[in-house]
Amino acid sequence: MAHDHTQHEGAAKLYELIKDIKVAMMTTIEPDGTLHSRPMWNHSADSSGDLWFFTRERAPKVRELSRDAQVNLGFADPSGQNYVSISGTAEIVRDQSKVKELWSEGLRTWFPKGPDDPDIALIRIHPAGGEYWDGPSRSVMQLYGY
Amino acid sequence: MAHDHTQHEGAAKLYELIKDIKVAMMTTIEPDGTLHSRPMWNHSADSSGDLWFFTRERAPKVRELSRDAQVNLGFADPSGQNYVSISGTAEIVRDQSKVKELWSEGLRTWFPKGPDDPDIALIRIHPAGGEYWDGPSRSVMQLYGY
Ligand SMILES: Cc1cc2nc3c(=O)[nH]c(=O)nc-3n(C[C@H](O)[C@H](O)[C@H](O)COP(=O)(O)O)c2cc1C
Repeated sequence: MAHDHTQHEGAAKLYELIKDIKVAMMTTIEPDGTLHSRPMWNHSADSSGDLWFFTRERAPKVRELSRDAQVNLGFADPSGQNYVSISGTAEIVRDQSKVKELWSEGLRTWFPKGPDDPDIALIRIHPAGGEYWDGPSRSVMQLYGY
Repeated sequence: MAHDHTQHEGAAKLYELIKDIKVAMMTTIEPDGTLHSRPMWNHSADSSGDLWFFTRERAPKVRELSRDAQVNLGFADPSGQNYVSISGTAEIVRDQSKVKELWSEGLRTWFPKGPDDPDIALIRIHPAGGEYWDGPSRSVMQLYGY
């Protein structure tokens, strides 16, 4: 499986680390060039290594990502001293069956109407590169195009 | 003190939150437009509300910031459920006395030669805006120009 990122050496470790850090800081570029980040609940990577997030369709980040798809996901677990950075591109996906597949009750805090809320969209992140720090040193990897 | 960000309503709370989160994910824009982040040890804000970080003068992030000064700092404390985002601009500062003032022994992991290492530079972040989440809801504030 040429496109299964999770099988890549190093990537397996990176995906393992983010499984335990449930919340990512998602950084996007605003129209005026400033960088904006917000905490986002991270779901398990799919079989191709892409990451999925829930959003309101009318949220500012959806507008920002439609203009500039570049995104960074920063994962920090200070207690375990694990830090992960993933650079990639985002795609807005409207797919009711995928929403249902990924839905978990914890999301009700932000989406009180549940998975049938027509205003829910998904952000699919395709990682291009990643780095992790599980101590003072750093591991860098390409996650794309192999 | 018109420029004392830490006195601003809301900002005081934001600065209090990041005091307890020692490490920020610093996101910069690479020449090819991709977003890059890395964990950085955060020092106390100075009296004007600016934030200071240590770096190697020849680190890639210094080159990135010289091209595009936009930066985002993402602070995550999953155990306390506190998240902070600060958007701002970065300036590279070469000031040996400021290096000595801010130096703490924990930095030796990344700067084993200590504060006299001539390759150390400082990154000064001037916050333009900030947001924090200390639960499911969000507080947004302007930190600039008041
Ligand atoms: C907890 C933690 C704190 C760090 N703090 C710093 C720091 O204060 N300054 C620094 O230059 N690098 C620090 N690093 C290393 C950086 O994350 C990064 O690997 C290094 O600065 C090179 O970054 P660059 O190639 O993007 O320029 C820290 C790493 C960790 C894991």
